[in-house]
Amino acid sequence: MVIALLTDFGTRDYFVAAMKGVILSINPKAAVVDITHEIPPQDVWTGAFVLKSAYKWFPRGTIFLAVVDPGVGTERAPLIIKTRRYFFVGPDNGLLSLAAEEDGVEELYRITGSLPRASSTFHGRDVFAPAAAYLSLGVEPPMLGIPTSRWTKLTMPKPRLENGVLYVNVIYIDRFGNAYTSAGAEIYQIASVGDKLCVETPAGEVLATFVKSYGYAQPGEAVMLVNSEGYLELAISMGNAAAKYGLRQGQELKIRRCQQK
Amino acid sequence: MVIALLTDFGTRDYFVAAMKGVILSINPKAAVVDITHEIPPQDVWTGAFVLKSAYKWFPRGTIFLAVVDPGVGTERAPLIIKTRRYFFVGPDNGLLSLAAEEDGVEELYRITGSLPRASSTFHGRDVFAPAAAYLSLGVEPPMLGIPTSRWTKLTMPKPRLENGVLYVNVIYIDRFGNAYTSAGAEIYQIASVGDKLCVETPAGEVLATFVKSYGYAQPGEAVMLVNSEGYLELAISMGNAAAKYGLRQGQELKIRRCQQK
Amino acid sequence: MVIALLTDFGTRDYFVAAMKGVILSINPKAAVVDITHEIPPQDVWTGAFVLKSAYKWFPRGTIFLAVVDPGVGTERAPLIIKTRRYFFVGPDNGLLSLAAEEDGVEELYRITGSLPRASSTFHGRDVFAPAAAYLSLGVEPPMLGIPTSRWTKLTMPKPRLENGVLYVNVIYIDRFGNAYTSAGAEIYQIASVGDKLCVETPAGEVLATFVKSYGYAQPGEAVMLVNSEGYLELAISMGNAAAKYGLRQGQELKIRRCQQK
Repeated sequence: MVIALLTDFGTRDYFVAAMKGVILSINPKAAVVDITHEIPPQDVWTGAFVLKSAYKWFPRGTIFLAVVDPGVGTERAPLIIKTRRYFFVGPDNGLLSLAAEEDGVEELYRITGSLPRASSTFHGRDVFAPAAAYLSLGVEPPMLGIPTSRWTKLTMPKPRLENGVLYVNVIYIDRFGNAYTSAGAEIYQIASVGDKLCVETPAGEVLATFVKSYGYAQPGEAVMLVNSEGYLELAISMGNAAAKYGLRQGQELKIRRCQQK
Repeated sequence: MVIALLTDFGTRDYFVAAMKGVILSINPKAAVVDITHEIPPQDVWTGAFVLKSAYKWFPRGTIFLAVVDPGVGTERAPLIIKTRRYFFVGPDNGLLSLAAEEDGVEELYRITGSLPRASSTFHGRDVFAPAAAYLSLGVEPPMLGIPTSRWTKLTMPKPRLENGVLYVNVIYIDRFGNAYTSAGAEIYQIASVGDKLCVETPAGEVLATFVKSYGYAQPGEAVMLVNSEGYLELAISMGNAAAKYGLRQGQELKIRRCQQK
Repeated sequence: MVIALLTDFGTRDYFVAAMKGVILSINPKAAVVDITHEIPPQDVWTGAFVLKSAYKWFPRGTIFLAVVDPGVGTERAPLIIKTRRYFFVGPDNGLLSLAAEEDGVEELYRITGSLPRASSTFHGRDVFAPAAAYLSLGVEPPMLGIPTSRWTKLTMPKPRLENGVLYVNVIYIDRFGNAYTSAGAEIYQIASVGDKLCVETPAGEVLATFVKSYGYAQPGEAVMLVNSEGYLELAISMGNAAAKYGLRQGQELKIRRCQQK
């Protein structure tokens, strides 16, 4: 059974290894796969977004163990969520919500157990890893927690189209500096592939070509495209759009088709 | 059988992959797990500390393959250490010592073999990886090396309590900038959870709240807590204490309970 | 069956996880191993060099899935290469060529299939990962693509010896700042271990000791040695030669044995 990990623990310390050790001690046959451990520290939104973008490609029955947990050691609940095809294990702070809601939540449990002598500061190792490992052995969620119904959900911002202008938010910036926006196919209501788009950013107006994929742009050219996850993104071919235009998660951008001259 | 890797090789080159390839060529069923490859280059102490913090969570029989090896190619011995529950494989420079001594050393061997045409500069691939892979197949250590008794051990610094002041050393700084000290439960001799601690650092005096876990602090608040590994640490809630206070491994800190006013 | 991944996707996003999810959905028993995901963005040469340095250590039959793909979504072909001992899957831009040619190319196919509703921008997930996963199940290449004969090859620069001066190029810089050159055993034509070498770099002349391995040098000493891959490299013991001398891939260096004085 696959257990897929997502954390903000980084990979330079012993944190992730301790979690994997706990999992393999409980279920030596677990197939542990890293999604990422480089979520920015305590950035629950980014964790939730990356989990939502990754989960659906995994085999049915995969157990997602996600820990970005600024509230560790306080009263925030540790959760097991059974969805249509998967299990999600992690803190109740919204981290699991974008993925779990998209897949369809079926059952929700508050984890009650932990390793003996559990710490107050490392529930990834002492609470979540054992819960995920026991799930991977076929232990049923009601053995590991008590049913609950209240939990924390995040909301994806919606784009807005007004007078030919598409108002969007930057929701994610990837390793290449490509800025994902809250819009997707809405862009086709104001433009077609090949058009020039005028994008109002905090650094001023950017002229971007609407393309089908990066390979169709000149090196250094600003482009917009609907990416492989269905999001409209602002990118620079062979460059870093976020760095060049000072883009950050949460910012609003205004997009319109440039006037022909 | 699990083979757990710890190196200072980073993950951007072919070094770790070559080691994994060698292991899988010898034992295709080995379960190779990364502890970390981001030990600072040639920093034997940090490698030893991370190994000590990670090893104990792994299943009995796990083989730890650790390479931080500034003396590669010289006369320093390549070691196999059999401890109470595990095997440790790596260079004789102290790297294995904190973990192996804690678990209890039973047998010590100097590795005598290598891959054919072994290099002078990459014993991780040519000496240590094959030794670990053969151990994972059940080959007994005396087939891979000759018994030895002399080896290099590191010493963990001890805290000192004098006139109500706890003198400690910074022994590790983690990805979040939390500074681990050489003290642990000793702090309870001078303070209780909820007290204010006055910490003398190279950057001046820091006022830190003694808390049970990060979640009980205000964002930006300096705290001290006994962490999941049992070390007293100095941290900033949602912040980076090491960066803010210029903390570095080896520094001495002086901690006392602040006077009530 | 081992599937070994090399990309420029980094590990902070969902890209690599999506590829692994696709592979495990098709073949739950695939043993997925990371070579690296930190090839500099779009740097096909570095990807090809790292792949060439890693592949040969893997078990016979390993499937190498490599994606550094600035031309994604354009007409560049997706390839399967069957070599003497391995399979290579990736874009036709030279990335696979240094490794595949060294092992011996036997058959070459242009991949024709993809996941349903494949994107234009993420062939790693939608084209290459499924092809690699089906190969790992034993599906024959002719089921996955059509034979082809034209493909893109990179050329390794050759060193040149003239009047006792060895002209070389920097071909790779590793995590330690060691600069690999296009020369190897040629150095023995002008010098022996223990000699002093005078190396003309863009930052001026560097005096380096020709050593057998790093451990024989003083900390901070500049050295040259024939490394574990057979390349002559310029390094600083316990230091970073590339940073100190401003070395970059592609630069020419001139090496001669220093005159005795």
